[in-house]
Amino acid sequence: MHTHETVVMSVGGSLIVPDQIDTAFLTALKQLVNHQIVTCGRHFIIIAGGGKTARRYQDAAGAVSALDPEDLDWMGIHATRLNGHLLRTIFRDIAHPVMITNPDDIIDIPKKTPLIIAAGYRPGASTDLRAVQIAAHRGATKLINLSNIDYVYTADPRKDPSAEKIEDIEWAEFRKLIPRDWNPGLSSPFDPVAARKAEELGLEVAIINGMSPAEIEKYLDGENFVGTRVHS
Amino acid sequence: MHTHETVVMSVGGSLIVPDQIDTAFLTALKQLVNHQIVTCGRHFIIIAGGGKTARRYQDAAGAVSALDPEDLDWMGIHATRLNGHLLRTIFRDIAHPVMITNPDDIIDIPKKTPLIIAAGYRPGASTDLRAVQIAAHRGATKLINLSNIDYVYTADPRKDPSAEKIEDIEWAEFRKLIPRDWNPGLSSPFDPVAARKAEELGLEVAIINGMSPAEIEKYLDGENFVGTRVHS
Amino acid sequence: MHTHETVVMSVGGSLIVPDQIDTAFLTALKQLVNHQIVTCGRHFIIIAGGGKTARRYQDAAGAVSALDPEDLDWMGIHATRLNGHLLRTIFRDIAHPVMITNPDDIIDIPKKTPLIIAAGYRPGASTDLRAVQIAAHRGATKLINLSNIDYVYTADPRKDPSAEKIEDIEWAEFRKLIPRDWNPGLSSPFDPVAARKAEELGLEVAIINGMSPAEIEKYLDGENFVGTRVHS
Amino acid sequence: MHTHETVVMSVGGSLIVPDQIDTAFLTALKQLVNHQIVTCGRHFIIIAGGGKTARRYQDAAGAVSALDPEDLDWMGIHATRLNGHLLRTIFRDIAHPVMITNPDDIIDIPKKTPLIIAAGYRPGASTDLRAVQIAAHRGATKLINLSNIDYVYTADPRKDPSAEKIEDIEWAEFRKLIPRDWNPGLSSPFDPVAARKAEELGLEVAIINGMSPAEIEKYLDGENFVGTRVHS
Repeated sequence: MHTHETVVMSVGGSLIVPDQIDTAFLTALKQLVNHQIVTCGRHFIIIAGGGKTARRYQDAAGAVSALDPEDLDWMGIHATRLNGHLLRTIFRDIAHPVMITNPDDIIDIPKKTPLIIAAGYRPGASTDLRAVQIAAHRGATKLINLSNIDYVYTADPRKDPSAEKIEDIEWAEFRKLIPRDWNPGLSSPFDPVAARKAEELGLEVAIINGMSPAEIEKYLDGENFVGTRVHS
Repeated sequence: MHTHETVVMSVGGSLIVPDQIDTAFLTALKQLVNHQIVTCGRHFIIIAGGGKTARRYQDAAGAVSALDPEDLDWMGIHATRLNGHLLRTIFRDIAHPVMITNPDDIIDIPKKTPLIIAAGYRPGASTDLRAVQIAAHRGATKLINLSNIDYVYTADPRKDPSAEKIEDIEWAEFRKLIPRDWNPGLSSPFDPVAARKAEELGLEVAIINGMSPAEIEKYLDGENFVGTRVHS
Repeated sequence: MHTHETVVMSVGGSLIVPDQIDTAFLTALKQLVNHQIVTCGRHFIIIAGGGKTARRYQDAAGAVSALDPEDLDWMGIHATRLNGHLLRTIFRDIAHPVMITNPDDIIDIPKKTPLIIAAGYRPGASTDLRAVQIAAHRGATKLINLSNIDYVYTADPRKDPSAEKIEDIEWAEFRKLIPRDWNPGLSSPFDPVAARKAEELGLEVAIINGMSPAEIEKYLDGENFVGTRVHS
Repeated sequence: MHTHETVVMSVGGSLIVPDQIDTAFLTALKQLVNHQIVTCGRHFIIIAGGGKTARRYQDAAGAVSALDPEDLDWMGIHATRLNGHLLRTIFRDIAHPVMITNPDDIIDIPKKTPLIIAAGYRPGASTDLRAVQIAAHRGATKLINLSNIDYVYTADPRKDPSAEKIEDIEWAEFRKLIPRDWNPGLSSPFDPVAARKAEELGLEVAIINGMSPAEIEKYLDGENFVGTRVHS
C-alpha cells in the first residue's frame, strides 16, 4: 500500500545521545524509516532533539559564566542541529539535501520529497512546537514523539505508586497532566505550548519509546502498540 | 592606549574541547579578551573550531553509514557553531548578539562593535579560511591562530630529530612547509588555501599556543612571544 | 518627554508608490519620524507596503503566464522590500543597518535601536499581519496603519450614501465590517487575520491618512485626530 | 542531442524593464529557454539585472536624501530580485522553487534541476560577478550576457567613427577595453572584476543582444552568431 501519508517524527535527544552517541539506535532508526519509505510509500519529516550534547555545553557555559535562559536555549538548538545533521548524514541517499531550521522553510520543499530532516530554530520554543508547526504547514495529521518512556503516566511512577499508564487520552485531559508553560529545562512528555497548538489543529500525537521500533511500526500500521495516543 | 585595532582570532577546537569541554581554558580566554577590550581598546572577532565534538559525531556517522566528505565537513561546521555559541555565551555582555556564519554578514555589523563571534559556514573550506575572509572584510591586518602547539617546526618534531622551531617566516617559505590543498581531515598548522589568501592580502598570522595567554598578550603588545609569526 | 515607547507603523504601498514614487510623501514622513525620535524619544518600526510597483509586476507576469496566487504574493513581497529599502535609505543615519523580512529576526535587534525598517516575508500573509507579529515580539501596544483613507466607514461611502465614518470602534465590531479571510488582492482597511491576532494581543490600531502627518502627531500625543481608532 | 550542458545566462535589466516591463521580450525568452531545455536537454541558470526599476528607486532616494553608494547598490539588488521573481513566475512549471541570491546556495540545488533563477546578493559587486561565481560553483563553461547591444566595440561607436565591432577576443585584450574597477553606476559591457575572475576560470562569455533570440540559439548550437565571444 503506497499511501504517501506524511508523518512528522520528533526524535528525543536522549535517544540520539543518551551519554555517548548511540549508533545502535541510529542504525535501527535508519532501517525502520527506509523500510517505511521504500516499502510502504510513507513520507517522513524528522526533527532531532539535543540530548546529552546540549546538557554538556549548558553545564560548561554555566561553569564559566552566569547564564541567560536564551543562551541555554541556543546551546540546545545548536546541539539539535548537530544531531539533525547526523541524521541527515545517515539518510544521505533519500533525505532532502538541506536540513530545515525555520519551520516556514518547509513550504518551499516539494511535496514529493520522501524525507526531510529538521532541527531547532530559535529560543523560546521546543522542538515539539517546531514539529507541530511543521505538521501544520505540511497538512500532516500524525506526529510520533520518540523518547525513552513507554507510556505517559497519570503521575510520576517513580514517586507515586498509584500512577497508571495511559494508552489513549484526549488533549483536554492530557493538558491537565502537564505544566502550563514551557521553559528550556522543562521535563514534560510533550511541550505544553505545542500541546495547545496540536489540540487546535486536531493533530494526533503518539508518544512511543524509540528503543522499540516494532511499536512504531504497529502504530503506523494501525495496530495496537505500546505507547500513549493523544488526540482530539 | 586605545587603538581600536581589530584582531581576528581563530580558536582551535582542540583548545575548547580537547576531550571534554575545557572550562579552565574558556575562563582564561574570557579574562584575556575582556582585558584587551576594556583596558586596551582592541576589538576582536573570534572564530571557533570544532574539536573533539566534531570528531565524535564524524566517527558515529561513519559507524552507521558510508560518509561523503561533505557530510564530514557539515558535522564539523555544526560543531564549530556549538563551540561558537558557547563563546558567545561566556561573552554575553560584550559580544554582538548574533553569531556570524557567512563571513559576508560581517559587513552589516557596525565597526564600533568590540567583539563578534563567528563559526563555520559551508563545506569546502576550513575556519582558517573564514578567519582570513573576515579579516579581509574588516580590514584587519593581524590574525592570531590559537591551537595546542608552541611553534611551527621545519618538520614534524615527533618524527624528525633535526626539526627546528620557526619564530618568524615569510608566506612563500611557510607555504613550502604545508600541503598544497585542503580537505576536512587535514592536519596542518594553517589551511593552505587560507595561507594563499592571507599572503595575497599581506595579512600577518601569529600561531600561538592557546594555553599560554601571556604569549598572546606579548604578541598584541608588540613584544617577543613564544610562537610563529608568518608575514609577507 | 522621552518615553522610549515603541510604535509600529505600517506604511501602505499606495502612499510610497501611488503611481510613480512620491518623494514629497517620503520627505514629509522623514521629517515626522525624525522629529518623533529626536525630540520625543519614541522608537519606531516601519513596515512598507508594495503599491503600484507590486501591481505593475503582477500585471506583467499575468500577461506572459497563468499566475499562481503564491507568485502574486511573492511579487508583492519583493516590491515591499524595494520600498522598504527606499525607506531604509532615507533614514540611513538612524535606522538599523539591516532591513527585517522575517518578523522573528526583530528579536535579535537591541531594544535601544530607535528605528527599524521591515518588509514582507513570505506568501500567505499581508504586511498588516507582519506588523502585528512584530508588535507582539517587541511588546508594542500601538500600531499606526497609514493608507490613503481618512476613516474606516460603516460601508463603502462611494456606493452607500448612508455610510458613516468611524472614529472609535472595538475589535469585535470592527471585525464584522471586514471580510473573514485574507488573500493577496484583498481590499480591506486592515487584514482580517491580522485583526484577529491584534484583538488577541489587545493591540490598539490607529488607521490614519498618511498624507496628513499632523493627524499622526496628534494621535501620538494623545489628542483628538482625524482617523479611526480600533481597540479592545 | 541531450547534452545536459549548463549555461549561465545574465539577462540585463534594460531588457526586462527598458522603461515599462517588456512582456514581449519575456514571452520570447520563455519560448527560447523552454525549447532549449525540453528539446535540447540544456540546463540554465538565469540571473536578472535591475533595469529602469532600479534607476527609478535610486533617483527617488536621491531626491529625498544624500545617498551612500551602498544604498544605490541595495536598491539595484532589490530591483534584480523583483525582476528575478518575475522570471521565476513565467517559468513556474520548470524552475527551482526558490530564487537564489547568495551564489553559494547554488551548491545545495540538485544538479539535475533544469532551470534556476538567481538575482543580486550584496553590495560591492554586479550581477555579472555573481553569474561568474555561479558558473564556477556549477562547473559551467559558458556564460551568455544578454543586453541591448549587438557587439562590443573597440571604442564607443557613438563618439568615435573609427570604432570597430569585435566578434572574437581573448580576455587579456578584452580587459584592456574596459575600466579597471567596478562601481554601482559603471557602464561597461562586462564588469571588470567579473572579467578577471572569468579569465582565471577559463570561462567563455558570449555578449549577445537579448532582442535577437535567434542569435542566442546559433551560439548555443555552435554556429556563427551576431555578438562578441570573449575567451581565454
